[in-house]
Amino acid sequence: MTKHLTDFDKLMAFQRETEALAQIAGRLGWDQETMMPRGAAEQRGEEMSAIEGVLHARRTDGRLAEWLDRAEAPDPVAAAQLRLIRRSYARATKIPADLAQTLARVTSTAQGIWAAARAADKVADFLPTLAEVIALKREEAAALAQGGDLYDALMDDYEPGATAAVISAMFDRMRPRLVRLRAAVLEAAQPPKLNHRFGQDGQMRFARDLALAFGYDFDRGRLDLAVHPFSSGSGNDARITTRVVETDPFNCFYSTIHEVGHACYELGIDPDYLLTPLGNGVSMGVHESQSRIYENQLGRSPAFTGWMFRQMLDRFGDFGVASPEEFARIVNSVQPGFIRTEADEVHYNLHVMMRFDLERALIKGDLQVPDLEAAWNDRFLADFGVAVDRPAHGLLQDVHWSCGLFGYFPTYTLGNVYAGCLHQALRADIPTLDDQLAKGDTSAATGWLREKVQRHGGLHEPRAVISLACGFEPTEAPLLDYLDAKFGALYGL
Amino acid sequence: MTKHLTDFDKLMAFQRETEALAQIAGRLGWDQETMMPRGAAEQRGEEMSAIEGVLHARRTDGRLAEWLDRAEAPDPVAAAQLRLIRRSYARATKIPADLAQTLARVTSTAQGIWAAARAADKVADFLPTLAEVIALKREEAAALAQGGDLYDALMDDYEPGATAAVISAMFDRMRPRLVRLRAAVLEAAQPPKLNHRFGQDGQMRFARDLALAFGYDFDRGRLDLAVHPFSSGSGNDARITTRVVETDPFNCFYSTIHEVGHACYELGIDPDYLLTPLGNGVSMGVHESQSRIYENQLGRSPAFTGWMFRQMLDRFGDFGVASPEEFARIVNSVQPGFIRTEADEVHYNLHVMMRFDLERALIKGDLQVPDLEAAWNDRFLADFGVAVDRPAHGLLQDVHWSCGLFGYFPTYTLGNVYAGCLHQALRADIPTLDDQLAKGDTSAATGWLREKVQRHGGLHEPRAVISLACGFEPTEAPLLDYLDAKFGALYGL
Repeated sequence: MTKHLTDFDKLMAFQRETEALAQIAGRLGWDQETMMPRGAAEQRGEEMSAIEGVLHARRTDGRLAEWLDRAEAPDPVAAAQLRLIRRSYARATKIPADLAQTLARVTSTAQGIWAAARAADKVADFLPTLAEVIALKREEAAALAQGGDLYDALMDDYEPGATAAVISAMFDRMRPRLVRLRAAVLEAAQPPKLNHRFGQDGQMRFARDLALAFGYDFDRGRLDLAVHPFSSGSGNDARITTRVVETDPFNCFYSTIHEVGHACYELGIDPDYLLTPLGNGVSMGVHESQSRIYENQLGRSPAFTGWMFRQMLDRFGDFGVASPEEFARIVNSVQPGFIRTEADEVHYNLHVMMRFDLERALIKGDLQVPDLEAAWNDRFLADFGVAVDRPAHGLLQDVHWSCGLFGYFPTYTLGNVYAGCLHQALRADIPTLDDQLAKGDTSAATGWLREKVQRHGGLHEPRAVISLACGFEPTEAPLLDYLDAKFGALYGL
Repeated sequence: MTKHLTDFDKLMAFQRETEALAQIAGRLGWDQETMMPRGAAEQRGEEMSAIEGVLHARRTDGRLAEWLDRAEAPDPVAAAQLRLIRRSYARATKIPADLAQTLARVTSTAQGIWAAARAADKVADFLPTLAEVIALKREEAAALAQGGDLYDALMDDYEPGATAAVISAMFDRMRPRLVRLRAAVLEAAQPPKLNHRFGQDGQMRFARDLALAFGYDFDRGRLDLAVHPFSSGSGNDARITTRVVETDPFNCFYSTIHEVGHACYELGIDPDYLLTPLGNGVSMGVHESQSRIYENQLGRSPAFTGWMFRQMLDRFGDFGVASPEEFARIVNSVQPGFIRTEADEVHYNLHVMMRFDLERALIKGDLQVPDLEAAWNDRFLADFGVAVDRPAHGLLQDVHWSCGLFGYFPTYTLGNVYAGCLHQALRADIPTLDDQLAKGDTSAATGWLREKVQRHGGLHEPRAVISLACGFEPTEAPLLDYLDAKFGALYGL
């Protein structure tokens, strides 16, 4: 039987099982955040460590090197598969197996400790674990960087090809325009605050319908509650979560649309790539471009919020908002809030820039964990003009560091930048977009994104997939122009 | 470092990861039945196949043979660990890896096909898959039996040491007394039927409180809905499911108590055995003894149903039952129904005996899949006096065969037999049991079971753990005596 299999075939068959096992590990992560009983946390740490050990063994399996040496790609798609397997193998063989397993176990446990510390609002409960995670991540980064920049080595995992130097330069170009826009908006007349309670069941029902409106396929996914909204899984099982705050339904609704963007990227990939290296979103930045364009450029457009306003009146009755115009301003209200995931489009990237600087310092060793809270709070006061009132609003707000996701935060802003580019190209291709969005119909836009970006999966490099979709090299300019125009109009600047 | 590890230590460290991976496979099974989106079924089949491949590779790993050869057990607990690892290794090395993986993939997909066929009430949609499963199981049985009896080889997986000949002889002894009791009860005056609707939310709330009343630890488990109630997981993560029928709340309540019995067995095992071979229930028969004694001898005792009756009046208002005595007769009503899991204690074992005979014939090759429905329906009419009205009430009712669980059914009756023995010993040790149950307090009984049975996990052989707990060799007599006495009193025989 095996006589007729080429080395490429053998490689892909082996890789397919690895991808299936990686899906399993992802599903366990989903379970941990949504379904797992609390008392199972420690045992789950051992389970995650065991499956990570299996994955690491497969990703460093000696047969991979032999197959990769001998395999010939029959076509460009196969060549892309080989490229990604080569990259994964090169990366995995640099990390010692026991380090990989320890990281898996410690970060699994750390998430439970983070969640408890956040609930209790106690930084001290989290810092020892965080220090342990950082020490392990620095060890991992050193193994990967082999003399190069530690932070770049970590970031490469999430955004192949990106470097802190390039990101940092881009952030430096973005910051003045964002700060200027922020100041102008905060000086303008502010929309009223929502003053109404929206029950959990009603919010979840509308969240479900919003997911459907953005093309989410519930036959290949599901929507649940979690502390921190996330999406998880690939192929035919891409699940999303959201959270409910009774006084702030937009938290639930826009978290849902955001995660739908991520999930639709995975669900939109060419089915031929199922359980292959190409069968996943190509980078976190490109992933975020999908979630952000769904959430912001489409979901927070005045055209779409007009439809949403009527829907909410039908579902929740009069909730004290006078007109679609006022509703659009409330949805797009600009406030120096504490929480990144709840931040408006003007403040959001400032949150990211702050985390980027802090975590680079942590990984470099310039900032020590005991000094982190003060550094966070000082920087937040400087950038946002308000003092952090409690740790859950400060450094305990995000799950990322407990998971060991250092180098991940900048991909959020990169995603916004890519979303800005895609939005410019999308508007040029679909001049009637606002008419459709005003009817709650996102199908032309999401169809365009599926065709131009999502279906390719990992076929092109991150920047390439954006430039191929847009017809131009991505820069920060379209995002900044869009923000100036949108908030200028909403706030009469 | 490794110099100081004995072969026994190395073996146990390796085994611990295998146990953790087995827990993961179990959790995926749970997810599949409760949370997985429908469209993910095929992909899940590949995922299950991949993890089963990993497990099979570990269970047949050549190092196991070396460690087993050289390992010395420092104490009797270690000796028991070695005994179970030896048994697992001997079994696993008999099954070819590709057969194990094919079985995992096919049975995973088959469960989805079964669920759809059951929902559509179409036997024909399920039979081709069933034929495929049976062919694979026969292949597996042949590999295991190495010339011996195929069915015995499969049953040994669920009930080490049991043989069809011994089970069959026991069933032959039981049948006349069950048939006699059945005839007498059906001739007596029947209790009224429940004629009230109980909402899903109210049922699930009471199910939760019943689980708590039987000592289920929600910090280490959870309760969800599924098509077929089951329990899943070990150590600190043992989850249960139930189902809701608005006109028949006892379906939900007693499924819950039943699964609580299974889960409490796993959760009650000595924590020192976590993620070791001893850290699981020792056999399906002993498992079922726990679920059955929780459900029937405790949960359906007139003492406990008196408490339940008052609880239900408080929660659901007047539901048309006049007295605790009438309630006890309704809970224990005896009817020749179609569904095994809903069967009363008198009919239950007759369902099992029928499946035992049919599946032995299927595995032996005496009965072919195209003839199965007729064989089922003929036998059901003969044994129960009513004709199967639709396939969902007939051979599509149980998930087992789609999972490849041939040889499993007889362990249900074995569990009833063991429960009968344990109940006799428990009553002798706790003379005031009924006073406690009448207050909804099961703690003395469940504490006795935890101490006598559950905490030992896999330490003793199945029959041994029962005889050690009871102080006598298990036989069917205590169960039959209990049934005669209980139903004699309830029905005034």
